[in-house]
Amino acid sequence: MTDFNDFYTLKGYSSLKKGDTLTTAMEDYLEMMYRLYRNHENIRIKRLSEILHVKPSSASKMANILKTSGYIEFEKYGQISLTKKGKTMGDYLLYRHEILQQFFCYINHSDNELTLVEKIEHFINKETVDNIKTWLDQMKTTQ
Amino acid sequence: MTDFNDFYTLKGYSSLKKGDTLTTAMEDYLEMMYRLYRNHENIRIKRLSEILHVKPSSASKMANILKTSGYIEFEKYGQISLTKKGKTMGDYLLYRHEILQQFFCYINHSDNELTLVEKIEHFINKETVDNIKTWLDQMKTTQ
Repeated sequence: MTDFNDFYTLKGYSSLKKGDTLTTAMEDYLEMMYRLYRNHENIRIKRLSEILHVKPSSASKMANILKTSGYIEFEKYGQISLTKKGKTMGDYLLYRHEILQQFFCYINHSDNELTLVEKIEHFINKETVDNIKTWLDQMKTTQ
Repeated sequence: MTDFNDFYTLKGYSSLKKGDTLTTAMEDYLEMMYRLYRNHENIRIKRLSEILHVKPSSASKMANILKTSGYIEFEKYGQISLTKKGKTMGDYLLYRHEILQQFFCYINHSDNELTLVEKIEHFINKETVDNIKTWLDQMKTTQ
């Protein structure tokens, strides 16, 4: 018989999260800030709100949360910069995104799985991302 | 340069959902009701709330939503039964769960990925589930 002891709703699982973890929204914003940083673009509230299809007030609120958590700093003239902690996390978030993108493109024989990846990436732990990368590397070697 | 046109936050993607789709919570409850049905157990609010670690009032509210949507019916003495539509959807939800469970156990060399699967299954579309199944079947054949 199925063991029902470990089931929760998605909301329930989210509330089990502990420690210095980012919410899905914090991850979405930080990943996008890191993309802009990598593209040598200025990071500003207006630009973020346009790209992420959110209100400037929402982007501003989230930027304040990321600042309080030590991921970003506010510079002069409305510019945002990533702290060392922010760059390290942003780099991981982009790595996770790219590994999952490669993986689902392989599985679905497609060249773009952005929507799928953006939805699930928050819930894939680092061990799984690393194991998918190892698997992808093996697939490349054997093909 | 990265094309930023298609990015949303997770909340944004969720609000793009249209048509006769179930919310993640509706899926969690219906999947669990179907598990009980498959185990020949009675489906009751109290039992559901215990298994899913939610309040009976939350389970009751969700059962009403699933009834309105045509997935379940209320029987005598507090029993819940699945409609044909509910059984079809429940069968798919369990299929999706089991394929993802098999797949992530393979990737992570483990025998249980319940927490991971329960979090991401809501966001994996049918095409991807079917493609993962095809891949798993191929792996079994070649091993």
